[in-house]
Amino acid sequence: MEAIGRHLLLEMWDCNREILNDGEKITQLMSDAANDAGATVVKSIYHEFNPPGITAVAILSESHISVHTWPIEGYVAVDIFTCGTVADPQLAIKGLLEVFEPKEHTSVEIKRGSPYIKGTMLSRVNSEIRI
Amino acid sequence: MEAIGRHLLLEMWDCNREILNDGEKITQLMSDAANDAGATVVKSIYHEFNPPGITAVAILSESHISVHTWPIEGYVAVDIFTCGTVADPQLAIKGLLEVFEPKEHTSVEIKRGSPYIKGTMLSRVNSEIRI
Repeated sequence: MEAIGRHLLLEMWDCNREILNDGEKITQLMSDAANDAGATVVKSIYHEFNPPGITAVAILSESHISVHTWPIEGYVAVDIFTCGTVADPQLAIKGLLEVFEPKEHTSVEIKRGSPYIKGTMLSRVNSEIRI
Repeated sequence: MEAIGRHLLLEMWDCNREILNDGEKITQLMSDAANDAGATVVKSIYHEFNPPGITAVAILSESHISVHTWPIEGYVAVDIFTCGTVADPQLAIKGLLEVFEPKEHTSVEIKRGSPYIKGTMLSRVNSEIRI
């Protein structure tokens, strides 16, 4: 049995702060990322916090995607959890980096729901730092 | 600078299948887990899939929580991402195990948004298997 899902965690630092406090914009970028990954948004919600920050989450046909922004720190955390064989969360990274323009980022992909990796869950680590 | 967030990923196998296909029930259990973690639900959504399965996600004041169920496989994946110093996602595990009754489970906690762990993101692994 293969893993049921793939879960990508993307960390972005020193992003373009101008777009980090607009809930509708962040929701659109999240939807674009889902599309880039080959996933389908079923429904989504977002909330604008004060002190500033956006949380946007969407149910995907393939599981979920979330974006959290910290405008003051310039930090953005993205999760893309997909199941099935069609969607590929790695395909969303390039577009996210283009719109958030982080000076540095890292990503890690964790396999979910595989009985063969119950001991660690961590199947692959992609760590990149872009200066 | 400490990490901005803590992200708990909980895997549960061979759960009580009777509760895995009820969206309102799963949403309530998700809310209970958020409360156990000391977090606050801002808003939530869920979707019932066919073939059966529930996805429920909630925006927390502290970030987000999600629950995905696979009733046929008896597998449930939970994520609890919290920021701040009050909420503790580890506190939700006990209650989730009591209600989902998995025969086996594992959890991993990943620190998010810490510049000191950009190379790995993985700060602590808690792996438990309950037979």
